[in-house]
Amino acid sequence: MVCLCFLFVFFNQGPATLGFRQKNFDSANHPSASYTDSSDDETSPRDKQQKNSKGNGDFCIKTSNRLNSEMPALMALRKRAQGEKPLAGAKVVGCTHITAQTAVLMETLSALGAQCRWAACNIYSTQNEVAAALAEGGFSVFAWKGESEDDFWWCIDRCVNVEGWQPNMILDDGGDLTHWIYKKYPNMFKKIKGIVEESVTGVHRLYQLSKAGKLCVPAMNVNDSVTKQKFDNLYCCRESILDGLKRTTDVMFGGKQVVVCGYGEVSRKGCCAALKAMGSIVYVTEIDPICALQACMDGFRLVKLNEVIRQVDIVITCTGNKNVVVRENLDRMKNGCIVCNMGHSNTEIDVASLRTPELTWERVRSQVDHVIWPDGKRIVLLAEGRLLNLSCSTVPTFVLSITATTQALALIELYNAPEGRYKQDVYLLPKKMDEYVASLHLPTFDAHLTELSDEQAKYLGLNKNGPFKPNYYR
Amino acid sequence: MVCLCFLFVFFNQGPATLGFRQKNFDSANHPSASYTDSSDDETSPRDKQQKNSKGNGDFCIKTSNRLNSEMPALMALRKRAQGEKPLAGAKVVGCTHITAQTAVLMETLSALGAQCRWAACNIYSTQNEVAAALAEGGFSVFAWKGESEDDFWWCIDRCVNVEGWQPNMILDDGGDLTHWIYKKYPNMFKKIKGIVEESVTGVHRLYQLSKAGKLCVPAMNVNDSVTKQKFDNLYCCRESILDGLKRTTDVMFGGKQVVVCGYGEVSRKGCCAALKAMGSIVYVTEIDPICALQACMDGFRLVKLNEVIRQVDIVITCTGNKNVVVRENLDRMKNGCIVCNMGHSNTEIDVASLRTPELTWERVRSQVDHVIWPDGKRIVLLAEGRLLNLSCSTVPTFVLSITATTQALALIELYNAPEGRYKQDVYLLPKKMDEYVASLHLPTFDAHLTELSDEQAKYLGLNKNGPFKPNYYR
Amino acid sequence: MVCLCFLFVFFNQGPATLGFRQKNFDSANHPSASYTDSSDDETSPRDKQQKNSKGNGDFCIKTSNRLNSEMPALMALRKRAQGEKPLAGAKVVGCTHITAQTAVLMETLSALGAQCRWAACNIYSTQNEVAAALAEGGFSVFAWKGESEDDFWWCIDRCVNVEGWQPNMILDDGGDLTHWIYKKYPNMFKKIKGIVEESVTGVHRLYQLSKAGKLCVPAMNVNDSVTKQKFDNLYCCRESILDGLKRTTDVMFGGKQVVVCGYGEVSRKGCCAALKAMGSIVYVTEIDPICALQACMDGFRLVKLNEVIRQVDIVITCTGNKNVVVRENLDRMKNGCIVCNMGHSNTEIDVASLRTPELTWERVRSQVDHVIWPDGKRIVLLAEGRLLNLSCSTVPTFVLSITATTQALALIELYNAPEGRYKQDVYLLPKKMDEYVASLHLPTFDAHLTELSDEQAKYLGLNKNGPFKPNYYR
Amino acid sequence: MVCLCFLFVFFNQGPATLGFRQKNFDSANHPSASYTDSSDDETSPRDKQQKNSKGNGDFCIKTSNRLNSEMPALMALRKRAQGEKPLAGAKVVGCTHITAQTAVLMETLSALGAQCRWAACNIYSTQNEVAAALAEGGFSVFAWKGESEDDFWWCIDRCVNVEGWQPNMILDDGGDLTHWIYKKYPNMFKKIKGIVEESVTGVHRLYQLSKAGKLCVPAMNVNDSVTKQKFDNLYCCRESILDGLKRTTDVMFGGKQVVVCGYGEVSRKGCCAALKAMGSIVYVTEIDPICALQACMDGFRLVKLNEVIRQVDIVITCTGNKNVVVRENLDRMKNGCIVCNMGHSNTEIDVASLRTPELTWERVRSQVDHVIWPDGKRIVLLAEGRLLNLSCSTVPTFVLSITATTQALALIELYNAPEGRYKQDVYLLPKKMDEYVASLHLPTFDAHLTELSDEQAKYLGLNKNGPFKPNYYR
Repeated sequence: MVCLCFLFVFFNQGPATLGFRQKNFDSANHPSASYTDSSDDETSPRDKQQKNSKGNGDFCIKTSNRLNSEMPALMALRKRAQGEKPLAGAKVVGCTHITAQTAVLMETLSALGAQCRWAACNIYSTQNEVAAALAEGGFSVFAWKGESEDDFWWCIDRCVNVEGWQPNMILDDGGDLTHWIYKKYPNMFKKIKGIVEESVTGVHRLYQLSKAGKLCVPAMNVNDSVTKQKFDNLYCCRESILDGLKRTTDVMFGGKQVVVCGYGEVSRKGCCAALKAMGSIVYVTEIDPICALQACMDGFRLVKLNEVIRQVDIVITCTGNKNVVVRENLDRMKNGCIVCNMGHSNTEIDVASLRTPELTWERVRSQVDHVIWPDGKRIVLLAEGRLLNLSCSTVPTFVLSITATTQALALIELYNAPEGRYKQDVYLLPKKMDEYVASLHLPTFDAHLTELSDEQAKYLGLNKNGPFKPNYYR
Repeated sequence: MVCLCFLFVFFNQGPATLGFRQKNFDSANHPSASYTDSSDDETSPRDKQQKNSKGNGDFCIKTSNRLNSEMPALMALRKRAQGEKPLAGAKVVGCTHITAQTAVLMETLSALGAQCRWAACNIYSTQNEVAAALAEGGFSVFAWKGESEDDFWWCIDRCVNVEGWQPNMILDDGGDLTHWIYKKYPNMFKKIKGIVEESVTGVHRLYQLSKAGKLCVPAMNVNDSVTKQKFDNLYCCRESILDGLKRTTDVMFGGKQVVVCGYGEVSRKGCCAALKAMGSIVYVTEIDPICALQACMDGFRLVKLNEVIRQVDIVITCTGNKNVVVRENLDRMKNGCIVCNMGHSNTEIDVASLRTPELTWERVRSQVDHVIWPDGKRIVLLAEGRLLNLSCSTVPTFVLSITATTQALALIELYNAPEGRYKQDVYLLPKKMDEYVASLHLPTFDAHLTELSDEQAKYLGLNKNGPFKPNYYR
Repeated sequence: MVCLCFLFVFFNQGPATLGFRQKNFDSANHPSASYTDSSDDETSPRDKQQKNSKGNGDFCIKTSNRLNSEMPALMALRKRAQGEKPLAGAKVVGCTHITAQTAVLMETLSALGAQCRWAACNIYSTQNEVAAALAEGGFSVFAWKGESEDDFWWCIDRCVNVEGWQPNMILDDGGDLTHWIYKKYPNMFKKIKGIVEESVTGVHRLYQLSKAGKLCVPAMNVNDSVTKQKFDNLYCCRESILDGLKRTTDVMFGGKQVVVCGYGEVSRKGCCAALKAMGSIVYVTEIDPICALQACMDGFRLVKLNEVIRQVDIVITCTGNKNVVVRENLDRMKNGCIVCNMGHSNTEIDVASLRTPELTWERVRSQVDHVIWPDGKRIVLLAEGRLLNLSCSTVPTFVLSITATTQALALIELYNAPEGRYKQDVYLLPKKMDEYVASLHLPTFDAHLTELSDEQAKYLGLNKNGPFKPNYYR
Repeated sequence: MVCLCFLFVFFNQGPATLGFRQKNFDSANHPSASYTDSSDDETSPRDKQQKNSKGNGDFCIKTSNRLNSEMPALMALRKRAQGEKPLAGAKVVGCTHITAQTAVLMETLSALGAQCRWAACNIYSTQNEVAAALAEGGFSVFAWKGESEDDFWWCIDRCVNVEGWQPNMILDDGGDLTHWIYKKYPNMFKKIKGIVEESVTGVHRLYQLSKAGKLCVPAMNVNDSVTKQKFDNLYCCRESILDGLKRTTDVMFGGKQVVVCGYGEVSRKGCCAALKAMGSIVYVTEIDPICALQACMDGFRLVKLNEVIRQVDIVITCTGNKNVVVRENLDRMKNGCIVCNMGHSNTEIDVASLRTPELTWERVRSQVDHVIWPDGKRIVLLAEGRLLNLSCSTVPTFVLSITATTQALALIELYNAPEGRYKQDVYLLPKKMDEYVASLHLPTFDAHLTELSDEQAKYLGLNKNGPFKPNYYR
């Protein structure tokens, strides 16, 4: 695989540095060190003339001097492009959350030789100071926090529809960018070498296109890479369930009775083990007998929801199913019961059933609603039933770093793949690349991998450099 | 013990209610439901004419319509004084943090028959909306957030120095109120039946007074009650170490190397076990071989600080000692290392040694400083080395409830104790009361205590109703 | 799937009973209740005339009145064949370990309508008293503890080569029975409907036959069923690593330094988590970066073996690889270091390298050797490097029950499958049956499975009765 | 404390050796390497002429060539007396279990200058091969396995009542030796400098003597030393509960429901945490609200025994109370329920109530009885309700080493204490010595203690060398 040799050169040189953040954000931010929000400026960014300090005006952002999000001191992803440029000639149009981590990704792609134009995949998630720093750094960014839906599509369009620049790679998170090009500029696909898609939703759309025979370029599904799945689902949720509950409710975990609906990867270590370790008593519901038996062996009582609904202090859904917690269950919960969702589907808790006249909703703080029954009983509903760890917690930079590294590798693979390696279909990242992403993150933990001897490799029937597991290994 | 019969009547009747918060705060708060801070009003509360809705003006607060702190849905402490009033005739002057929990305590004391006047024990910690609700409820409260030092003593004085009202009980947190009366109104002690003191510092002052022969009334040290100690030290810290680190740094715990200095009660389950459960690799330093051997048996490598200082990601002190982490150690830490203190002493980390010209301090968010070495290395210092769990986390209401219950019981005990039971000395809460406080919190967990049979009580040489452990039991 | 309806009738009726053990073994065993071993009888069973109490002599066993292995009080597998007989007409020839659990399986098959003839798959593992009880119960069993190799094949032959009885199903554990029929009686396969194989080795042989185009009947690989894998690998090893080490060495786990080679399913929860929970300090070695990163996130330091070999108290291999611990490593271990293998391959520890003249071997108790270096250093080698949990621990009946249930289901499936469902190939148990095996074991834990509503099943695109996971799900 | 300087010289020199075991036992044992028990020799040892290889006949033992108990490879306790002999002139008469560990203690005392005569404190616990090795080594040992009660007192008498030798120190375990001297040779106490007592029972007897004014020499209670208590109760039980259950019943812990009666030190980490870690669901009963609240916060449901008695798989008592599990509870348990006791009192389970005609007892293996109800229900009773971890598990050498070291130190302290330091009373080991015992065991774990700086010692008000905790610290 030709492309990998590039990467080994680029990624494996020397110690980590604080990199991007120090160079761009800190200097801009420190002089002020003020926490005043300048967001009372009501003029739309679209109506302003904007230029960065070098006179470049090909971006549209909202300026800010507040730094909301700190990046941890160490980044696993590093960029030291020298000599070879595996993305030389690549013109990447991207549509993702605009955060410090994305900035690192864009700088990385740029260092690898790509040109980038970028829009936000969510109208709320843009960090204005990051967008500002990127614009100042010469990137064509079209995004600000609090876009209208019209703004949203306008920004995407500005990324794609520009004189003298035609994208040949798509990096998407949610499929809106891909959708827009399909709808407005289908001819562009003639020059596009591939799509890299990050989200569950976007991947689902791509598979539908593929089934319908309408996918006209290869696409790489990076959402389902092993590394990402393991870390997002298991290790990330293990911490974010505690963090999300604590920040929103200050609940003490010790002695609390909790029911977790579903015992798949997310809930297993992600929720159940973490809460057990903190002294909660955890009950589990399941539909699949194999997962159910595992819950038993791990020390959780397997119950039907209604057996414990009256006594539990916290209800957590992580099933991927719908209507797991319905109005009847909510009616039976005790006063003060906390209800939240850690699954991908927003319909796990039937929140709609709580929008009835006899119930009063009270927003007690951001992401926290009290739903009040006529007799005064309050249910504490978090994030209106949406995914708790995205709404009420932070995603560790370590996990974001894994995602960004995977995206970069997928772009390089698609961009450099010889004719015919990929058809007009949806692909998973090759196992070897998945393993490579993992290996890039080991130095963070001062972890030392063992190498197979020639004799051992032969015995196991493996190449000494991997892949070590079959492609279907999860 | 006569007083206990009162309490059993008062405290053991029926299910928990949301109580105070619903009745007083919520109604006041909901109509607005706005999060705007009205704190730009620059006039001092001392310069305003204030009256509550019934025309009562004996208080001094700063009005607010913002609700900072939510109370959990269930409170273990409940008040249903009917008939007997164990504090009838008591005139309690109090000086504590003014929070929702204190409000519950004051309402409880009032329901038990006491009259109360209250000041804040800290110039920053007053929750204005709580003070407002208390004033509206008819309590004489003198406190607002952001008092000057002069305001602070003025407020205390207004509690004590009032025509026609002479306190006969003191409830103090820190000893400032006691100090003020000693200094300004020593004659008041003639009518005072006792002091209940909550804080380490205040208790220390009382023991000094006692040693010097200057303590002129009995004092109850509620800081060292078993229940409080166990819960504050162990269970509370187990959660607050994670919460404090997460809220300030968003650090991912999995795989992180952590050194914890000291292996006493706080660090044992409080810090070490919690971090281990989250996937951190924890090292321990100790000076006492008995504690050291326990660290070994619990699965932690016992090291000297310098053996691991270059490799760890997080340094936590919980020793009660001074200069546990000194400049030399800080110089050797790696870039991005997080340093914080969970011990009671603010001198565990030699923060003063970091105030030198070659180091740059950067405040990156509330409670978080980056200290930057000339070569660009950053150390992340939390809460400037002060107690992390007070500064950067929340104290669970459950723990506050234990404290408040203990305070109320101590007041009742001192107020009702027959002549001669208590001398002019500092006392610990009798074991039986400690056990009673614990028993009052069991219903929260739907926990069912087993009762001794007559035969078993005889076999063990115990009274069936306790105390079950000797007074020295910790 | 027609066969399943039989099973639901057979397996889902009423509470567990002690079943087999009580009826057959206990009564036979109690009168004596003596622990004397009658194994000094030197005559070969082959040379004796044997008849059971009903005069039947079609078996060959060694009588015994000692009961080595107790069966737990509850068995998940139960047999209550009434009416329908899904194995009516089946003639099963089996070759497995002869233990109490196998006896339950044979009784089950018999109750389901099958006729059985049985031999042992291992010359040492036969429990003579079980064989005796089976013979007494009318089963044709040919097995005793301590067979010679010649005896071994003689016994197998006696199962197969009998006048007037031709097997139509094979149940094998290790492939020796299958091999014997291939070699001696290839024509028998004309009437054989299928092979059910339990072991890794036997499955491997079947795949080789299949590849070579020589497999002439369908075969079911029950070794790789999800339920079996999960329980054997993970939950079983979690307990057997502690048990195996404790019974052989009485080592105290607290504070011990342990290195575990390999971080796959077995070692993950099986070894590492159990030892961590007992207070050991665990290091991990890995070759696969994805598994390595998981070890880091789970809180284990990832090292190369030589980094820690001088300091560790225990070395455990679970890789499936060869020469993971070699003489050079063994030379560097400290005095008293315990070395054992939890992996399937006996070559993980290079035990052969220890058979050199300068090293003295001392057998200190069963399964425990001290290997003594010239300077007096002793290494404690367990089970001569063979699989620890088979050699030095017990396999919980619960796990054996899962295996036996799976075997019975596989036989039924193959026996009843319509023409053409299975070709001359190796098959995994259908997911639905795997789930069914799991569901049969849930009542042991008083576990209550949740059922999908019609609406939910539709939303998920699943049948309400499963299968709930795709066939590749592990 | 003069004596400590001796000890530092004696104990802190160089690396651990396998010591005693290698020198005496192994050589004697290996030639045979046979496991045949020669215990069918029916002649009483009292009736035999015995001489060791040097012609010395002042002992009485039963020869054996079987080694029952292996000692772990490393011993923390080591003896390298050179020059100074703190026990020079001491004549120690001892009455303890005769095991390999005791042999190490006796060799240690001898190396420190003492002369020893020894009897067994239990008629069953003597390891004959240890006694043999000691006799061969020149020690006057009077003990064998299976003494009659008459033998027992005869052996003790032979230790004390000997021409030309008068003991001046007593080392007792259970108080029988002390009792014998009180009864038969009260005048001996004139020359005796002190008693060191190891057991709960013996300590109890000493306190009774003291209360009655009849204690005529100082006595050291080493049972209640912190180190011993912590390790015996907590760390030892954590492992022995699993080991004891596994060896007797082969039960799988995962998913089992367990009720633990009592939540003191033993059960807390000892039983509850270990079982929870292995995947059991643990319920707790308690009478003390403070302990009860801790159980809640640690994540265990607090119940009354009858709430869960019908559903649990295992019942464990650790209360110190009597009749915690009575016949009524036993009647309600489900078939196969395992019942055992981890508390010190043998009356926690009312075993006597099971000795009724309608119940059948069946001894299924050593320490395991099935009690069978008329309907066939079986309860699995372990060790007839006696302490499980002594009966069915092994006590780790590490813990025995702590005990032996404490005993040696106590002897030295009493023997060398200046006139007047100890009166005719029962003393706890001084804290500093307790800490010293702990420090002697740290090298086993390669653990590195931190030393206080002068400044820190001053700040804390401590001596740099300890004691670090007040004497009442547990």
